[in-house]
Amino acid sequence: MMHTGTPVTVLGLGLMGGALAGAFLRAGHPTTVWNRTTAKADDLVARGAELAASPAAAIASAPLVVVCMSDYDAVADVLGGPLDGRVVVNLTSGTPSRARALAQEVAHRGGGYLDGGIMAVPEAVGTTDAVLVYSGPRPLYDAHESTLGTLGTGLYLGDDAGLSATHEMATLVLIWGMLDGFLNGAAILGTAGVSATAYLPLAQTAIGTVAGWLPGYARQADNGVYPADDGTIDTHLTAMAQVIQESESLGVNAELPRLVKSLAERAAAAGHGASGYVALVERFREP
Amino acid sequence: MMHTGTPVTVLGLGLMGGALAGAFLRAGHPTTVWNRTTAKADDLVARGAELAASPAAAIASAPLVVVCMSDYDAVADVLGGPLDGRVVVNLTSGTPSRARALAQEVAHRGGGYLDGGIMAVPEAVGTTDAVLVYSGPRPLYDAHESTLGTLGTGLYLGDDAGLSATHEMATLVLIWGMLDGFLNGAAILGTAGVSATAYLPLAQTAIGTVAGWLPGYARQADNGVYPADDGTIDTHLTAMAQVIQESESLGVNAELPRLVKSLAERAAAAGHGASGYVALVERFREP
Repeated sequence: MMHTGTPVTVLGLGLMGGALAGAFLRAGHPTTVWNRTTAKADDLVARGAELAASPAAAIASAPLVVVCMSDYDAVADVLGGPLDGRVVVNLTSGTPSRARALAQEVAHRGGGYLDGGIMAVPEAVGTTDAVLVYSGPRPLYDAHESTLGTLGTGLYLGDDAGLSATHEMATLVLIWGMLDGFLNGAAILGTAGVSATAYLPLAQTAIGTVAGWLPGYARQADNGVYPADDGTIDTHLTAMAQVIQESESLGVNAELPRLVKSLAERAAAAGHGASGYVALVERFREP
Repeated sequence: MMHTGTPVTVLGLGLMGGALAGAFLRAGHPTTVWNRTTAKADDLVARGAELAASPAAAIASAPLVVVCMSDYDAVADVLGGPLDGRVVVNLTSGTPSRARALAQEVAHRGGGYLDGGIMAVPEAVGTTDAVLVYSGPRPLYDAHESTLGTLGTGLYLGDDAGLSATHEMATLVLIWGMLDGFLNGAAILGTAGVSATAYLPLAQTAIGTVAGWLPGYARQADNGVYPADDGTIDTHLTAMAQVIQESESLGVNAELPRLVKSLAERAAAAGHGASGYVALVERFREP
């Protein structure tokens, strides 16, 4: 393969790191890789990647260093060497505070720092279906936007390095809520002999319907006004009590509907029984 | 307006019942309505509906009787009179067991019974965007499919009258999980000065991504095999711990991620730490 793009380094070759390196290779970027367990690099080396003997050697090989480790402690380990003139793009999941601290440390040592998050499964990396968010100094993002575009659709969030992690946290909570809701629903229907696959068309319809509500709901959350055009919290509370009672009689886990009801009860107690569902956002804003 | 369709009766004119009657009127069905508070019928009467003096009179006026009340006790009240030759379509939210009991009672009194659920906001009723599920004797559904099609896209689930309520429960849990996840995410981003509206594009992307995973996830749930192609439960547990810790330090509610983590911990304790996320379905299947 012709190598015509900007040279890049990828540190960390787990499922996701391997997918990142693979996407750079496919797009023709000279790609240096490093992983604690070198066997994980075999396939990438066969496809043209250069295996570095150490993180420092890998970092020395390219101006853009993409890091995707299991956690921030592992990131701190691999970024222990000189960073002058390097731009580090850290796609490791972490907290906003650790991202900001690492940004300072990298800057202090002469490197540039972008924090990022990957909103995709490894298989989607390298396609426009994969969405990656980035935060940190705008000029650094602009300088590498086209190279990073190799990995998927990029979304720049702002100068604060912590913004990627904050967005990733918000998105993870949404994903977990959605997945747990789906699996809980599948468990409920399983008691009636209905498979999860048979549940799918209705579940997808419900997801599309809720997705259609969200622009209006987001405005309500921002404005603090919660009209009950599509049902009040009191109506939801009646349904929640029924779902809990029936789940218990079916022998199905009722923890998710119980939490949902507890939050809705607190919203009703705060005077929002006749408000729409979005009034719950105020409960999420407090500990 | 010319009235050319099958005559229908609608009992209960709350937000949703009013929308159902309105959809029948727009499609040219002679529509009789009844509501405990008659003022709620004014607008429908002005659009051509007939206001009945009692539930019994309303039921006598049409072969198809659509019921949409606040709860099953209210449904039992309005269905106290003769039902011979009537097909009752009960769209009131309730439990599978109450739907089955009501089906028996209606049949015992000479009526036919379909249970149903509305997966839409009132504004969508009367459009193909509204999905309505039905369960009960297939011949009854077939006989009235075209009239019921006026209300939205119909989905027939099976002979067991309880199936609609079971599907509605499953879908409600999914919707609540998704909405609570979104509102929780909006609360997290609010601490960084990011509005819910600014969160929307990423949230919609995440929802689309998860929706794309569900066919494969449903197969995994049905087959009891949970490959970790897109991250293990142990990896999710690390992220969950971070989200909880950061939520607490931000002063944001952490109950949803705490529940999600507790379920994932139990999945890991059951030997599924290296499995994919769908292994959680087994936790939802037990009390």
